[in-house]
Amino acid sequence: MLSEFMPEFRQNLATKEWIILAAERQKRPAEFKRSRPPMGEVPAHSPSCPFCPGQEASTPEAIATFPPGANLSGWQVRVIPNKFPALTPGGNEACMACSTQVGPYLRREGVGHHEVVIETPRHNEDLPMLPPERIEQVVLMYYLRYQALVRMPSTELVVIFRNHGEKAGTSLIHPHSQIVASSVVPFLVRNKLYEGQRYFDAYNRCVYCDIIQYECEQGARVVMENEHFVALTPYASSVPYEILLLPRHHHATFGGVAEDELRDLAHVLQNLLARLSRLLDDPDYNFVIDTAPDHMAGVPFYHWHLEIYPKLTTPAGFEIGSGIGINVVPPEQAAAGLRDVSGTPITQEAT
Amino acid sequence: MLSEFMPEFRQNLATKEWIILAAERQKRPAEFKRSRPPMGEVPAHSPSCPFCPGQEASTPEAIATFPPGANLSGWQVRVIPNKFPALTPGGNEACMACSTQVGPYLRREGVGHHEVVIETPRHNEDLPMLPPERIEQVVLMYYLRYQALVRMPSTELVVIFRNHGEKAGTSLIHPHSQIVASSVVPFLVRNKLYEGQRYFDAYNRCVYCDIIQYECEQGARVVMENEHFVALTPYASSVPYEILLLPRHHHATFGGVAEDELRDLAHVLQNLLARLSRLLDDPDYNFVIDTAPDHMAGVPFYHWHLEIYPKLTTPAGFEIGSGIGINVVPPEQAAAGLRDVSGTPITQEAT
Repeated sequence: MLSEFMPEFRQNLATKEWIILAAERQKRPAEFKRSRPPMGEVPAHSPSCPFCPGQEASTPEAIATFPPGANLSGWQVRVIPNKFPALTPGGNEACMACSTQVGPYLRREGVGHHEVVIETPRHNEDLPMLPPERIEQVVLMYYLRYQALVRMPSTELVVIFRNHGEKAGTSLIHPHSQIVASSVVPFLVRNKLYEGQRYFDAYNRCVYCDIIQYECEQGARVVMENEHFVALTPYASSVPYEILLLPRHHHATFGGVAEDELRDLAHVLQNLLARLSRLLDDPDYNFVIDTAPDHMAGVPFYHWHLEIYPKLTTPAGFEIGSGIGINVVPPEQAAAGLRDVSGTPITQEAT
Repeated sequence: MLSEFMPEFRQNLATKEWIILAAERQKRPAEFKRSRPPMGEVPAHSPSCPFCPGQEASTPEAIATFPPGANLSGWQVRVIPNKFPALTPGGNEACMACSTQVGPYLRREGVGHHEVVIETPRHNEDLPMLPPERIEQVVLMYYLRYQALVRMPSTELVVIFRNHGEKAGTSLIHPHSQIVASSVVPFLVRNKLYEGQRYFDAYNRCVYCDIIQYECEQGARVVMENEHFVALTPYASSVPYEILLLPRHHHATFGGVAEDELRDLAHVLQNLLARLSRLLDDPDYNFVIDTAPDHMAGVPFYHWHLEIYPKLTTPAGFEIGSGIGINVVPPEQAAAGLRDVSGTPITQEAT
């Protein structure tokens, strides 16, 4: 039956990009291999880790902590400036961000903010292991830093993301996320806004609201739902086990979420990461919160969301040259696999 | 002095995407590490390699060879169908490629062609080691397959690319490239065409012709030039040591090249790969030939080119979420490094 499978193109409704589903190269979950040691073999404290308690003085001073004011000890979540920032605050922020011409090219000062959210004092306590009130704290910290950063004069867009494992771009084991406040809105984001607007022009509806409605009716790609969120594997998933987490309430920006939605977000995010970890043996992944710029908070055509990209395959020349992802696991199969494993928190002993 | 460096944004003139140059994280060439064994330690023939002489019967029959007709033995270059094709030929090609609606989504049969160009019978003879007439043969084969594939009724775009090393998406050591003939023109390519057209509307000139002129006057980012080609590190390089190889003659499509240009292309490509290998110890990389669809061969606003992307760093959540590459090596420094090493062919003994 596998040999009967013909590849197909699928179009991402929100971006208009195509992907190829080529399940002849299909792999079962156990065929994706990971090289990191299991978290169970990682110590709870590492004297050489800059994010571990006791090393606070070796990092810049905390920007925010839970509980508040716990810069040097007693913190549960600690936010610090990134020591190797992609963007840095300028003197006169708004002016520094103006473009200048270099021959035919445009250039801008790299003005912005780059923060690290240390999610736990324990070196080996990954997000799926946190008790409910602690994962809620992490997500609340994302929200509070978002609100603080969108108020900086240079901020055009806030990108909250997490790199887990070396294939996802980090070699630091200690659980952490990052936040970049950028003084430009990149083309990729502008294109999503533009396609959202075109869809709204054509149908007078938000494309993400329509995706939620269709997928919940259809069911095959839904991983889980709770009161405020729907998690699904996108119809045009560009990588195996890609997950799209959508809030049911239409808000263009992450800043629009209400308190009870934030709590639900924490639980559903932890649940999804626990499922990925169980099904794929703690794979490397990136996740990113995709939001409209905050000054577009009221637009009807965009809808913030969170995307999880497991790093199970390597994009090669064709993907780079064409922008077409080649996905070897049909999203319907990925959703079924993710539904079939437990999403309860992972205990240290069980890993 | 390094601590004085402030990050900057640079905009890609041809795509309008921004990158961040964050040289505080700067690395010297020797800091980028590779895990593959050096080619000098790889045997000239591997009995388990499907691309080595003697295993021809285990692969599909050759589509083309140099010399012609040498399917089972005596070939120097051998083109075969990919055993795990991303796209496959359809019965009624043109009709199979029509889109159909699945709920709100678009879907198409995965119609197309996917070929492998085995570049040499020797398992350990990489492109920078080939004598001049053999690298010319490889590039001529790219051209001949391009011409054959654009004549297939389903073909909208031909993508010629090479994955070198595991980080570039291949685990097969035997030197090879790939060619995909796609029945859709992806959004990424359409956007480049669109931005090229907008530039032409504004200035009545090709944006790539303007880049060649400015960069050759300016000099800092030029790696090498010959009669028909200019190789440079782009102003807004998205990755360290990215190289853009531009033909001086304006042709929108790869199919527009003349015979003497093809010969020059072979030499400059080999020269660049030899430089990369010497400077960065044979790094993993992808290269891709970026061309307009063949039916746009006459347009004044596009200009085919070849892009080389060394895989020295790992794109992470920020890059995925924003589309903004973070590059830790200024392209001016990359060009200087590449100019300072020899581009002569690499001999087996010397590796």
